[in-house]
Amino acid sequence: MRKRFRTRPGIGPSLSRKVALVGAGMSVFGTRPETPRELFSEAFREAAASVDRDFEPGQIEEAWIGSLAMGGYQLGNLGPFATESAGLAGIPVRRVENACASSGFALRDAYLAIRAGACDVALVGGLEKMNDLSKAHQRYWLGVSGDTEWERMAGLTFPGTYALMAQRHMHEYGTTEDHLAAVAEKNHANGALNPKAQFQKPVAREKIRSSAYVCAPLRLFDCCSTTDGASALILANEEHARRLTDDPVWILGSGAASDRLAVYERPSLTTLTASKTAARDALQQSGLSLEGIDLAEVHDCFTIAEILALEDLGFCAKGQGGPFSESGATRRDGKRPVNPSGGLKAKGHPLGATGAAQAYEVFKQLRGQAGDRQVAGAQSALTHNVGGSGASCVVHVFGR
Amino acid sequence: MRKRFRTRPGIGPSLSRKVALVGAGMSVFGTRPETPRELFSEAFREAAASVDRDFEPGQIEEAWIGSLAMGGYQLGNLGPFATESAGLAGIPVRRVENACASSGFALRDAYLAIRAGACDVALVGGLEKMNDLSKAHQRYWLGVSGDTEWERMAGLTFPGTYALMAQRHMHEYGTTEDHLAAVAEKNHANGALNPKAQFQKPVAREKIRSSAYVCAPLRLFDCCSTTDGASALILANEEHARRLTDDPVWILGSGAASDRLAVYERPSLTTLTASKTAARDALQQSGLSLEGIDLAEVHDCFTIAEILALEDLGFCAKGQGGPFSESGATRRDGKRPVNPSGGLKAKGHPLGATGAAQAYEVFKQLRGQAGDRQVAGAQSALTHNVGGSGASCVVHVFGR
Repeated sequence: MRKRFRTRPGIGPSLSRKVALVGAGMSVFGTRPETPRELFSEAFREAAASVDRDFEPGQIEEAWIGSLAMGGYQLGNLGPFATESAGLAGIPVRRVENACASSGFALRDAYLAIRAGACDVALVGGLEKMNDLSKAHQRYWLGVSGDTEWERMAGLTFPGTYALMAQRHMHEYGTTEDHLAAVAEKNHANGALNPKAQFQKPVAREKIRSSAYVCAPLRLFDCCSTTDGASALILANEEHARRLTDDPVWILGSGAASDRLAVYERPSLTTLTASKTAARDALQQSGLSLEGIDLAEVHDCFTIAEILALEDLGFCAKGQGGPFSESGATRRDGKRPVNPSGGLKAKGHPLGATGAAQAYEVFKQLRGQAGDRQVAGAQSALTHNVGGSGASCVVHVFGR
Repeated sequence: MRKRFRTRPGIGPSLSRKVALVGAGMSVFGTRPETPRELFSEAFREAAASVDRDFEPGQIEEAWIGSLAMGGYQLGNLGPFATESAGLAGIPVRRVENACASSGFALRDAYLAIRAGACDVALVGGLEKMNDLSKAHQRYWLGVSGDTEWERMAGLTFPGTYALMAQRHMHEYGTTEDHLAAVAEKNHANGALNPKAQFQKPVAREKIRSSAYVCAPLRLFDCCSTTDGASALILANEEHARRLTDDPVWILGSGAASDRLAVYERPSLTTLTASKTAARDALQQSGLSLEGIDLAEVHDCFTIAEILALEDLGFCAKGQGGPFSESGATRRDGKRPVNPSGGLKAKGHPLGATGAAQAYEVFKQLRGQAGDRQVAGAQSALTHNVGGSGASCVVHVFGR
């Protein structure tokens, strides 16, 4: 029988509040003919197999599944659908939705539940199947994460929204299309080393710069793609983490915030306030400074989004994200490695699966298991997961 | 500036783990011409106004919003949409989805976050707008909470699923259509006393028994209706609850579970295993026995569902839910009052808003503010919220 809360109403004060990632998995991202059940099962099997010792899936007591449930395959009760697909029918589970930040918030809620003492071992999942839909249906589903009343219904798409941000950034700070291309070039170079990435080929600057405009100034290679994929994380409290592995990846901080849905209601087009707040709170809780972060996985749904993230997180001064990217600082071997996985740009962006997939990359990097894309000596990391055009954001800080 | 986690990585052992409802609101349920923003704002305003003293909305630090997002008005980022509608833009928020158990799980996650020390005061919301859709679209959205692969695509609807359960219950235990009608008659009698209910008129047994079959043996009056509505709860930890009111309603236990999505894969058609597990865990955590529960709000999406709940929760012996209902035991003045609000049957069932609306009823009842439908002397209560046909269930126990 599963253990629930230990006592009522208090929880023993001796209980440690530390929470670790002890396992992580993700499906290969891309255009996948498999069913959603198979995709989630693929991610979960890898996560379960990655736990070093003494683990069986029956030890998982509760689950949080992030998904926009795009395509309507299982719009309701996707939580039980996912856990059943992983062989875990029976445990408490719910779907967490915050558009593209869904599984980042699922991670936050699982983390809080372990800290509350509600469970010792928990599952975080992410799942999205985008390629089964018509292009028109894909546009619909993406659009419904933006403001409905004044923007979506008036025709503003997500490429349109981020194009407005890019144009304003260019106007205010002199950012160029070459700066945007530097982000794409770097992330495709990283994705070329990631065997799970949707796109595993480097892309030359010239090809990026000459690709067609989707919505000026954003070209095809400035935009992430349409991706099927799943991700899974196994979390444990300190006692169980030490039982399950000698190599835990600790969650040191979790910060989150929201913002106005409609971009026209925000004071600035070039700052995502939710990113700033979430990062501030996560770092404060972690006890680390930004300088102490060895690598970051940030939400580059468009190249301009990575430039905004660099500034909002504080990796460079406001307005300097373009030149900072062009300088090479964010390359794997730069002073501030960003998106060594290839990011949403090259790894792919299966919406609700992305947040947990960012943590997957951190799990691999901090354990020194990231293969050809390993960031040398990485001991700490940050993930930054944005919903919509910044209406929600969650940041986590990890360390050894 | 908002306070986040107090220290890293521990939380001070002196922090109380008690969590209370200090405010609750719900919109009038029914066919509402207003926008989703207006509905949620209506519920939130009542919740904020119900806090006894020293409260302002800015004290709310984080929010969990339950919704199936039916109708696609705001399929993604409904969390930020709801908090923005309540004047709370900026705080961390996410949507929690578990079909009709969405806001019951939102309550669980907010409760756990307060226990974790992540916030002192939190908002739980529920929101659904069903009547803007065509009948065909309503059927689609309801269907997608059931098993897709083998049941929904083969034509099994939710009335069909519960009709199968009712038929089997009749076959195994001799339950009759009169037993079903007793549930509807009692809940409509209660709803007649609830000024927020969708249906506020008593319905005679004869009218129930002669209404048309929707799916035999379930008639029109055995089925809940199509409802627009919103609900809102304000939760606080012990320190803040005592600051905000002399009349807190404590959350004593929270239990949750899942089950197979497809009913054909379950060992029995007449038991919802997730209900049994969730109730067992919530009661165990609360320290109360079932005999100590003064009233219950259970998930009567169909009359047979209330009969199953009576048995699964343990209010009567297996198979005896029909005669138990016919005996009058579950009336407001019976020995075991069930659904004094009118239940989903008469109060209405706006899917994702239902779980928090059950807790709203408990808040009113335990504070002696339930007006004409007051259960005399109620000091403890239980809510039972089911997703789909039992794929998810969450139970909470409350007390003074």
